[in-house]
Amino acid sequence: MTVKTLTVVRDLLATNRQAAAAIREELRGRGILAVNLLSSPGSGKTTLLEALADRFRDRYRLAVIEGDIETERDAERVRAKGVPAWQITTGGACHLEAKMIGQVLDRIPADIDFLFIENVGNLVCPASYDLGEQVRLVLLSSPEGDDKPAKYPQAFLSADALVLTKTDLLPYLPFDPARAAAEARTIKPGLPVFAVSALRGEGLDELVAYLAGALERLRSGRA
Amino acid sequence: MTVKTLTVVRDLLATNRQAAAAIREELRGRGILAVNLLSSPGSGKTTLLEALADRFRDRYRLAVIEGDIETERDAERVRAKGVPAWQITTGGACHLEAKMIGQVLDRIPADIDFLFIENVGNLVCPASYDLGEQVRLVLLSSPEGDDKPAKYPQAFLSADALVLTKTDLLPYLPFDPARAAAEARTIKPGLPVFAVSALRGEGLDELVAYLAGALERLRSGRA
Repeated sequence: MTVKTLTVVRDLLATNRQAAAAIREELRGRGILAVNLLSSPGSGKTTLLEALADRFRDRYRLAVIEGDIETERDAERVRAKGVPAWQITTGGACHLEAKMIGQVLDRIPADIDFLFIENVGNLVCPASYDLGEQVRLVLLSSPEGDDKPAKYPQAFLSADALVLTKTDLLPYLPFDPARAAAEARTIKPGLPVFAVSALRGEGLDELVAYLAGALERLRSGRA
Repeated sequence: MTVKTLTVVRDLLATNRQAAAAIREELRGRGILAVNLLSSPGSGKTTLLEALADRFRDRYRLAVIEGDIETERDAERVRAKGVPAWQITTGGACHLEAKMIGQVLDRIPADIDFLFIENVGNLVCPASYDLGEQVRLVLLSSPEGDDKPAKYPQAFLSADALVLTKTDLLPYLPFDPARAAAEARTIKPGLPVFAVSALRGEGLDELVAYLAGALERLRSGRA
């Protein structure tokens, strides 16, 4: 990149950080925990949200912001679960930015507990953009291979927890969850790892407890 | 994006197009067919290259340029097949650019037939960067879901052919290859589609014939 380009990118990131800080402050004031979901296309972000909607139904109120380059498909899937969802179509842009979230924020019901933000399917660019979330989850699905953390380090370094998805496919794949977890922890020591099959509802209890704990810490002023 | 940012991006793309045109001309002069592989992380680009190395061994000479953010892993896998490979680690950048290919080009043996370029795993950004290839393949693996073409249209619009990978997993997934192909052809009418399992060596004959045909057209001056 040229010096000029580098400067513009740095300006963009600085502007984004400011917008993200304002969003984080506003959500904290409202007592809402925002969770940013990052992964490759097709790692199961929307399917995980559908499963969490079922698990959370009796205890928490959710809202979802969906980021995609094109289509309303993911928002429609989430709405079918009775969860209010806003679709942001970036029209080509490879990641969500904080200002996009800011434009939707006023329409989010005041009484929700969790705001899930499903980023554009991309294991690279979204890692550089803080959206004002409290918790960043990176998803890695078993068909993608257990060699991915070292190849896409920023996504794993910037995450608060790793969710290994599609564990129902493990019998048919060379994927080793322990190897994936170990490699991710080489990049980010102590990273919490959850292995789930959203399709079969397996492994979700631990993830639900983790998110509920983060919400409790936010509301008690400990996060 | 601001006007300034848009201008810088436009300048970058214009500079890239010029570099790509020069590479395409040089490769045409050498009679080498360059193939650019685009997909999400973990869609099976390297495994497809390993399978093609086996298929092409008796008839053609290959070389490979591997693009990754970090690690030499993919180049090592290709070299283990006896194919010369150069690893470009972008150190954070989400796509390869033509100038990166240009820097490697002089080291590519003069007598090869195919130069495969495995792009950074990312279904978004690499679509905007011409690398001077003659053929662009976009890969979509069955676990990613058959709803992806409309959500990532630029990758499919810019491709010369679609390769549906990991067909060995079809019995365990809701993926419908016909639906994926139809959706991709809504974006790009007439797009050739190949369904393969590189792991099992299934469906590769058609893809090999397609690539051999493209090489023949290049050398007879028809492409």
